[in-house]
Formats: sequence, structure tokens, C-alpha cells
Amino acid sequence: MKNKKIFLAEQDIPKQWYNLVADLPEAPAPPLGPDGKPVTPDMLASVFPMNLIEQEMSTQRWIDIPEEVLEILYRWRPAPLRRAVYLEEYLKTPARIYYKDESTSPPGSHKPNTAVPQAWYNKKFGIEKLTTETGAGQWGSALSFACDIVGLECKVYMVRISFDQKPLRKIMMRLWGGNCVASPSEETSFGREILRKMPDTPGSLGIAISEAIEDAVSDKTGKTRYALGSVLNHVMLHQTIIGLEAKKQLKLAGEKQPDIIIGCAGGGSNFAGLSFPFVCDKINGADITIIPTEPTACPTLTRGPFKYDCGDMACKTPLLAMFTLGHSFVPPPIHAGGLRYHGMAPLVSHAVKEGLLEPRAYDQVKCYESALLWAKTEGAICAPETSHAIACAIEEAEKAKEEGKEKVILFNYSGHGLMDLSGYESFLDGKLTRYSLSEEELKKSLESIKDLPEVGT
Amino acid sequence: MKNKKIFLAEQDIPKQWYNLVADLPEAPAPPLGPDGKPVTPDMLASVFPMNLIEQEMSTQRWIDIPEEVLEILYRWRPAPLRRAVYLEEYLKTPARIYYKDESTSPPGSHKPNTAVPQAWYNKKFGIEKLTTETGAGQWGSALSFACDIVGLECKVYMVRISFDQKPLRKIMMRLWGGNCVASPSEETSFGREILRKMPDTPGSLGIAISEAIEDAVSDKTGKTRYALGSVLNHVMLHQTIIGLEAKKQLKLAGEKQPDIIIGCAGGGSNFAGLSFPFVCDKINGADITIIPTEPTACPTLTRGPFKYDCGDMACKTPLLAMFTLGHSFVPPPIHAGGLRYHGMAPLVSHAVKEGLLEPRAYDQVKCYESALLWAKTEGAICAPETSHAIACAIEEAEKAKEEGKEKVILFNYSGHGLMDLSGYESFLDGKLTRYSLSEEELKKSLESIKDLPEVGT
Repeated sequence: MKNKKIFLAEQDIPKQWYNLVADLPEAPAPPLGPDGKPVTPDMLASVFPMNLIEQEMSTQRWIDIPEEVLEILYRWRPAPLRRAVYLEEYLKTPARIYYKDESTSPPGSHKPNTAVPQAWYNKKFGIEKLTTETGAGQWGSALSFACDIVGLECKVYMVRISFDQKPLRKIMMRLWGGNCVASPSEETSFGREILRKMPDTPGSLGIAISEAIEDAVSDKTGKTRYALGSVLNHVMLHQTIIGLEAKKQLKLAGEKQPDIIIGCAGGGSNFAGLSFPFVCDKINGADITIIPTEPTACPTLTRGPFKYDCGDMACKTPLLAMFTLGHSFVPPPIHAGGLRYHGMAPLVSHAVKEGLLEPRAYDQVKCYESALLWAKTEGAICAPETSHAIACAIEEAEKAKEEGKEKVILFNYSGHGLMDLSGYESFLDGKLTRYSLSEEELKKSLESIKDLPEVGT
Repeated sequence: MKNKKIFLAEQDIPKQWYNLVADLPEAPAPPLGPDGKPVTPDMLASVFPMNLIEQEMSTQRWIDIPEEVLEILYRWRPAPLRRAVYLEEYLKTPARIYYKDESTSPPGSHKPNTAVPQAWYNKKFGIEKLTTETGAGQWGSALSFACDIVGLECKVYMVRISFDQKPLRKIMMRLWGGNCVASPSEETSFGREILRKMPDTPGSLGIAISEAIEDAVSDKTGKTRYALGSVLNHVMLHQTIIGLEAKKQLKLAGEKQPDIIIGCAGGGSNFAGLSFPFVCDKINGADITIIPTEPTACPTLTRGPFKYDCGDMACKTPLLAMFTLGHSFVPPPIHAGGLRYHGMAPLVSHAVKEGLLEPRAYDQVKCYESALLWAKTEGAICAPETSHAIACAIEEAEKAKEEGKEKVILFNYSGHGLMDLSGYESFLDGKLTRYSLSEEELKKSLESIKDLPEVGT
């Protein structure tokens, strides 16, 4: 009998996070402040607690996971590694397809892997309230969950159009004590300004980030901070528990090493979480193909330039060295909301630049076709973001069949799609567009960053 | 460290189902046909395939699970047994609370444990299409899933009000190839008749059952049958895999025997699945308290009489010996749709009658309070049905604290609540009613069965 689920005992959970920065051949370019110089810890102190700022800037290879953080993660971790035997049989591939199942967390995705430590470090630093933004609500619900357990207040600015159209994750946030408001809101001066100018705006992540940061930094008691669910180094760090667990589990399954590693990449965190511990092996000579996958509608890594750009649309964040489509880029309304980000985590971007990763883009129709095949073979219903990893896994399994090679494929099953069933409905109705960014649109959106500095100059 | 998750290796999955009928001190009263005599296998042959009819009437203690059925169940089974350590800590109870996590199946509940073998046995019997009814969609999505994998057509008659108000499970069914229509429909003569008389009816399970059965028996090719998700003996049988797995896992956790076993009971299948293998121990002398829990709004076991009654509202089924509120009973609109059935599985009813079970009823406000405490301690969001088991587990854990006893509590976590978040919203808004059936309503609803035969006369 083939072993389909590989569990790790609780005592075998990784006790440290892995920091890729320690092993990169070249140091990544630092974030720049408004003065064009690298940001210092003090400049971030009103936004993040100092213990997380230290992690953000750390070059230490291994960072201990606090025992109390592990105790919270045990609610769903170690997460299962599973083998997609039914898909393999359907494809008649000699490849062995493994996936790390991050859909088993209470909010249903990998997001709480960083929400929990972020809430815990803030609490330890004496913070009483966290603010954040959310689009479809994945991150907002993960942070609400983490704050509820740790004992922090949580305020979530949710992009208005999602707030109105996606009631389910809003209920999840509320259930875990999160205070979720539609953005733009009347609660910040930036929100009020936008509402005065554009009373009917559907909102945007850019606006919501600006409101969440304003809420945090304007609290005169100093007890409020802001939390971000992707992009930053400390977020990638917290997610490496995924790859570290997967490594142990692959050994239990009798595999020496994966040949191909795949993760979908929006801001980059679930991809980094699975892949970074293996990127380390690749730096040390292992022969592994590591593929971040993204939508053709938002092809940051496959078509954007590597440049300094702002993390948000309003340009309130430091400049980050990353692949970007320009901070003014408004992606088409694809269902994979978590992959609609204009930029990419600086660490993921840097690894692409160094030739360690081989990004690919897929259109959403191909992704939903893959998701449907997944549901009809493996049974589970994946998130639209995750379908971008499955599309690539299927492509690679078919290639292995053509080549007659017994390859080991590992991908990250970043979340379930039970809150995103309407996307499946549109697909089954034949209503989905194969969006692909045109040269003209790309050129236009890059206009907004033409005066921003190049990396390394 | 406390062990929070107890996994069973795939090769240790039970290879046989357990049939309680073999061990009951007294034989249960048989179902009666229209002539008042016990039904014969032939009388059911147009509705069910003969291999399932044999299981329905079997008195054999152990029945082999076909290898091909196991191969499908492995997609999510063995299901984890988990220990609710965070809830225990919150309650400061000396009790050890274990729960069998049936929420990990692709459709999110215990239902596919029987949907899969039912689809498989029908396929083996040469059947090409299954029909069924569904309320909120739990059973319809489970049967669609099973038919898709086995290779059967699946037609689901969904109560119109749910069809209109609950789009999510409808999309799940469609995704797995199920053909779901609103009931009453234009597709059956019974449906057309109802639509002519009551064009604006919201529909009912009674109507949907009648349509599904008519669809099955009127197929002149003889290739269509009907499938039921609860109540019947063979459904209870298939669900015993839950309790058989739990027994092995409790041993792995170092527990000799549970003191208290709890499951919510609507038609009775998830409760029977967990408890029947332990009811066997109780019959053989073990000291176990076994508690089916139900809503005070639909208190079949706690307040209904034990009588012969029809399984459906239109009285098209054989008469079943069971606790019942009367087949004309229309329960109030509580969120736990799966517990709104007027009757109870004959085997569960019989075991209550023999004093083997101790039913209890809870109102939905108390249940949602328990569900919220669960989400804030254990993390996960449970189904409204499941909250009726959690309410009882908490009550028993508090009692153990008062008594200072280290009791072992085991309950069935029958499903997740991710498709039922609107109930949580109503609860948080303070809009839920503590429905409790009045004496007058009970008396009135029992009018419909006053002329039906008593059991054992």
C-alpha cells in the first residue's frame, strides 16, 4: 500500500525558524527610507515592535521559536504531508507528487503561521492592539484568530468591495473577536479624506494599508502596532516551519530529496515558507528546480523589472528592492485575490535575481481546470491561489511521464477553497477570462516607478 | 507534553464494519409494509440495490469493508482523534476530553463514510444513477462526491428554500458532478402536483424525499436507485468505522476505556457511528455513559413516544419502530438543519428503549455559546449540529471538576461550520431564539400518528 499521509509527531516539530539571509551568496539590497538611505530600526519603531524589527533585520541562520508560540501552533501543526496518489494514477505519471497541507489551520491557510508569532511578540513587547488590512479576508481572519488566543485587540481594515461582497470571512473575524470595518472608513483622517473625494470608491489594499498604519502610529499611548501578512523578511522567516516540517516528512516517506518544489506567490510568504529550507540545499549544491507560480494577470516575477518600489499604493512604506509591476498597478479581478499584489517579497525577489528560482505564470482558466481535476481525484477543494501551484505540479508530472523519469514533486497546498466557491461557479459557467497583461498595460504601469532608484546603484 | 493528535496509520484502518444488531439483547422490531406486515427484501428492490438491502437486514456481527471502498476512504481516513487540551485548560477540569474529527473529509462531515459505500455497492449492482434529497446540502454534497469518484450519475432534490438561500453547498455538488435541482421541481409528477397547488412553497424534506424516490422507481431501465444519508441500519453500519477507529486511537493515547461518549443525533448516523462499538462493550458489562444529544426544538428522543411512524412526511416509506414527534412535525428554523428530523434511527431508538443510551436536549443558544468557546480555545469552527455534542462535553467536564474525577470524555466532531457561518452571525447579533417545544405543540404533532400501530403489539 502506498503511504498517502505522512504525519510528524508533535515532539518532532521544528524548534527554530530558518533565515535564508544567512546563506544567500550575496546580501540582499536594504530597504530605503524617504531620504534614500537604508532604514534603521528606529525608523520602524512606531509601526512594529522592536523584537520583530530585530527579526526583520537579522542575519542569524536559526532563530528559536518560543515555546509559547509552539504551544499555540500545536492546535494544527505539524501539518500533514500528503501524497497525491489519486492524481498520480489519473495522470499515469511515474512522478511522486507530495503536498504540504496548510489548509488544516483554523482559518484555513498558512497565514496563521506568522499571525501567531507576530501577535505573541507584540504582546510580549507590551502592545495591546494590532491593526492590519485585508482583501478577501484570509489575513484578517488569521490575525483575528491569533490575537484572540494571545489576548490582543485586533482592528482590520477590509477593502470595501470585499467587505460588502464576501461576508463569510468577516463573520470568522468577528467570531474570533476581530473588529473589522470597511475601508475607506470614517475612523482615520486618510479614510475620511478619500470618502470626501470619492464617496463611492470600492476601496483598495493601498488605501486599507494606509488606514491601518495611521491607526497604529496615531495611538498616543504607544500601545498599538501594525501587522503585515506577507512580503517582509520576518514573515518569510515564520513561514519556514512549513518547509522544515516537509523536509522531515519527506525523509519519513523514504525520499532523499525533492526534484521540483512549487508554491504560488503573491507577496511570497507561502512559497518562501515551503521553499527556503530547500533553497539552502540548492545553494549548497543540490539539484532542485524551485518554481514560484503566479497569475498571467499579475506577472510580477516573470515580467516585472527588479527595482526599488513602494510596498503600498500610497507610497507610505520604505522602498523595497523587488520585482514589481509598479505600485500603481491595478490587477484584473481574478479570483486568486491573494496573488494580486504588484510587488514580491524582497527575499524571494533576490533569490530569483540570483538564479535560484525559476518563476512561471499561469492563467486562471488553466488553474481552475487543475483545481477541478484535483477535486475530482484527490477530493479536496483548493483555494484559487493554491490552484496556481497545482497547475504547475500537473505540468511537471506530465513532463516526468514524457521523460519517463521518477521525479519527486513537492508543492505547497496553501489553503482550502471553501470560502471561495463562487470562483468555481464562474469557471463552471464558462465565465472566466484568461487574463494576460498586455505589453502596453505593463509599460503604462511601470511609468509610476521610472524615477525610483535602481537596485545596487 | 500532552499528546493532542492521535493518528492511526493507514494500514491500521478497520477492515470490517460492526453491526450492533448482532449484540442487542432483544431483536429490534422490523419495519412494516403497507399491509402491516414486516417488509421483505423484494419490497425494497425498486428503491435500493439488493446488496445494500442484505446489509440493511443483516444480523451478522462483522461485515467486510471492500478493499475498493477503503481505497476511496483513505482520501481522508483514518480520521484523527484529538484531545481538546486547550478547552480542558480553560475549564480547569480533571477530565480528558477526546474528539473524533470527522470534519476532515472533502465535503466536511461524517456523511461520506456511508455515501462512498452506498455509491460503490450500487455501482457493483449495475446501477448507473442515484437520486437523493438534501436539506442544507451536507448529504447532497457527500453523495455527489462519492458518485463522482465511483462513476455514477447523481441527482439531488434540494429543499427550495435552502437551494435559494444556501448557494455554497450547491456549488460543491456541481463541482463534483452532482445535478442539483430545487424541490418541488417540474421533473417529477409529485413535484408538478405540489407546484400546481402551492406555487410559492419553500419546499420540505418530505417533498424532496418523495421526488427522489419517484425519480428512482420510475426509471424504466431499472438503472436508478435512491440513497438515504441516515436513519437506516446499513447507514449506521457504515458509520461504525468512526467508533472502531476511535477505539484503537484511545488505546494509542493510553486510555483503557471512555467513561462518557457523546454524539449529536438528528437521524442518528454520526452518533451511532461513534457509539455503537462502545454500546457493544456496555452490553458486555462496561461502565460507560452514552449520550445522544438533540435540540430542545426537536426533542425526538427526550420527549417523543416510541412508536411506529413513517420515515417521511408523505408516508411513502415503510413504518419504522422509533422515537418520533410525528411525521407531520415541522421543527422551528434552528440552524442545525441536520437535527431537524421528526424521527430517529430504529437502531438508536431501540438502544434507548433498552436503557443503553441516555439522551439529552440542549437549546441552540447554549449550543452556540459552547461553539464559540470551542473556537476561542481549540481554534476550529464547528458545525451547528456538532455544537450539540460540545455543549454536553463541556457540561460533563464541569461535572467531573465538581466531582474531582479524572473522567475520559469522547465525543464526535461531526463536521466543520465553514458553510454555516451565518448562524454564528445571528448568535453574535443576539438574534437566536432558545426554541423549546411546548406540550401543546407536541400533543398536536402526535395527532398525526395516533392511528399508527404500537411497537410490539
